[in-house]
Formats: sequence, structure tokens, C-alpha cells
Amino acid sequence: MAEQTVGQVHFSEVDIPTAEVDHREAVTGGLAASVRELVDATIRTTVDDDEIAAVRAELDLLTARLRTAQIPGPAGVRYNREGRSWGWGNAVIGQRNAIAPPLVIVHADDAETAHAEVTLGAAYEGPPGMVHGGVSALLMDQVMGETASQFKRLTMTGTLTLRYLRPLPLGPISIDCRVANEVGRKVFVEASIGNADGIAVEATGVFIIPSWAVMDEETGETEGWRRSAEG
Amino acid sequence: MAEQTVGQVHFSEVDIPTAEVDHREAVTGGLAASVRELVDATIRTTVDDDEIAAVRAELDLLTARLRTAQIPGPAGVRYNREGRSWGWGNAVIGQRNAIAPPLVIVHADDAETAHAEVTLGAAYEGPPGMVHGGVSALLMDQVMGETASQFKRLTMTGTLTLRYLRPLPLGPISIDCRVANEVGRKVFVEASIGNADGIAVEATGVFIIPSWAVMDEETGETEGWRRSAEG
Repeated sequence: MAEQTVGQVHFSEVDIPTAEVDHREAVTGGLAASVRELVDATIRTTVDDDEIAAVRAELDLLTARLRTAQIPGPAGVRYNREGRSWGWGNAVIGQRNAIAPPLVIVHADDAETAHAEVTLGAAYEGPPGMVHGGVSALLMDQVMGETASQFKRLTMTGTLTLRYLRPLPLGPISIDCRVANEVGRKVFVEASIGNADGIAVEATGVFIIPSWAVMDEETGETEGWRRSAEG
Repeated sequence: MAEQTVGQVHFSEVDIPTAEVDHREAVTGGLAASVRELVDATIRTTVDDDEIAAVRAELDLLTARLRTAQIPGPAGVRYNREGRSWGWGNAVIGQRNAIAPPLVIVHADDAETAHAEVTLGAAYEGPPGMVHGGVSALLMDQVMGETASQFKRLTMTGTLTLRYLRPLPLGPISIDCRVANEVGRKVFVEASIGNADGIAVEATGVFIIPSWAVMDEETGETEGWRRSAEG
């Protein structure tokens, strides 16, 4: 496994064929989908205390079975030599992370706009029956960061400003995002989250391309990548 | 069960003694703590596909047991006649919500400042090894909203502005928050999230006291509450 460090951020190259990565993602992602159901049931169940204690005891045994072999820390972001990358632990899009809805973000061909739809259930509640305002921020931050990066460069969130127009009920929601402008190493991105009744929260963000990550137009390499490859 | 509607937000009065609420919170909160461990193990496990399938099958049975009796929708925010309130499904502080770390927020006696500490693991990852920028926003939004409300009035997030100063590694983090100013129905709140190395993200927010929720200083009631009590 090779390690590349871009600023303080570590990416790991792993020598696994893409077909194997896809298969593993399906298997472990399926487990995470089941865990999401459990998260929801844990919030909503009204079974009695004894049954909860019994379920918990069996659950702890299942967790112990999963922990008999595990990586020492977080999942990180990995990639293979075929260019497939995966961040299974990401809090918004991580296929193996039951905290993530997970959001599936569709980027337009020109990579300047993006769209995502998902149904948010009981686990994403803030005000009674409503999506937590911070959850709206969390989801938009991910969509905006991806859109700013256009999958060809590293960007970091500089500032994020959110305007809350009205409460957003739990249920089906959608997010739209676009690159509004780009000046030097600053990428200005706009986004909104809402539902069939209209927009609930608007966001603007300034995403920064770190100076050590400005891409060489000819080679597609950044100073940071070159430095780490040389180092 | 009585229902009170403040704007679009529904609060439910439930006739359960506080001791019973506390007991139920401990039992179901314990289950959620176990589910958090499972969420982490699901991200990090390296056991083989067959074992994952076997664990998943047993897990689905446990979820089905919890679902034999459940509330029809999200947990909402409830309160009893003794003044105990609980929002077990809240995405940040919900004791029964495995998505919530959960954050325990300590408000100062004067309710003008608040502090919270928690350790964030693999499930809160954004950039490799780092807290997701949107997770920082999510946690601060909750702390800021509570601090703006001072537990005596309803406030709604108006705007939230976040400045990202540096990446925040997964691990122990702390949040500080204070009311900076108050003008009419606007409450200006400042917050920061960081660790032993200093502040990583700063936030400022404007929280709005809806006109229908301005409290009568003498009775402690709001127009909204009065309207719903009369309605």
C-alpha cells in the first residue's frame, strides 16, 4: 500500500482490482443498509425493557464478530491503479457508514452542476418532524465540496453560509448545486435543499484550492502530488 | 397525549412520570450506544464476505424484533407535566439516535454560554482521518440553537456562517458557544469547534424568535402557545 500526503490529508493506494472493490462495496454496503434500519428501529421501537436488553445482548455479540478483524482506524479515502477511488466511511456518501443516508450525488457532464435526492427518516430529525438544520448543512457541504473539486483537483471548504427560509419536513428531499464563479484559487459554489414545496435552505460557499495543490494543466499533477511522489 | 403546535412545529405532552422517562432513556439509550459500536464496526471490519452475510441475516432478525411494536413516525420532542422534555431522535443530542454522537451540551448558569466535548470516531469522517466539515456545522448548529433559545423561548436558525481555518482530526473535540448580542427578535450567537491544537472552525449565527413566539415577560407564555392552548 502506497501513501500519498497532500497537505495534512493522506490518500492510500491499494492494489485491489476494481471488480473486487465493487463486490466488497456491495457486500459491506448491504450490511450498512441493514444497520440503517436498526438505527431507525432503535429510535422508534416501543418493545419492553426486557426485550430491548435481550436484543442489545445479541447485538453486542454480532459487533464482536465484526471486530475480530478490522482496520485500526477510520476508512480514509483509497484508490487503486485503475483510478477507482472509494471513501466508504464518509459521513454523507460512505456506502459502509450507516450514519450516511447515503447520498448519491449525480454530477452533470460538465461537472459544473450536481443534483442529489434522498429520503430522510427519523434519524435526521431536529425540530419535531423536521430535518435537523445542521443535517441540511452537512449534506450540502458534501455536494458543494465535490462540485467545487470537479473530481480533478483538491479543494477545501473556506467559508459556508446558510440561509434558512423555512422548516424542511422529514421525507423526500433534493439538493441542487452549481459552480457560480471561479477567481484564482477560489471556487464560489451555490446550493439549495428543499422538497416538492420549494427551497428550504440556501447555501453559498467559497472553496479553496490550496496553493500546493494547484494543478499543472499539462501533466494534470499538483505540486503537492509531485512532492509526495518524490518524497 | 396532548398536542401543541407552535408554527409548523408539533410538541407532544405525554403523561409519563419523570422517573419513568429517565429509566426508559437509560434502557433505550444503552441500546443506541451498542448500535453506535456496530456502526463503527461496520465501517472498519475486514471479516470475509460469508461472515458479513451471516451477521447481516442475524441483524435483520433483531431489527424485526424491535419493529414488532413501534411509533409510526419520528420521535419528535415530548414533555411531561413535570417539565421534563426529551427529543430522543435528535440527530445531534438524541439519546436513542445512533447517528448522534450523542453530544452532551453543558450550558452555563446564565445560559449565555455553552460547552460540549465529545470524541468523534470513524463514522464522522470527511477528508481522510479528519472530521467532515459538515459534521462540524451540524454539531455547532445544535449547540448554537440551544444557546440562542436559552431554554425559555423558541428560536429558529436564520443564517449560519462557517469559517474553516484548518482540518480537524478525528478524536477528542470541543465546542464553545456564546450569545454575542440580541436585537429585537434576533439573537446573535458565536461558536467554535476545535481540539487541543486550537480552533478549527468558527461560526456565527443569527437565530430568530418568530413573531408568534415572543414571550410574555409576566406569564412566560408566547402568543403561539396561547393560540395552541386555546385552539
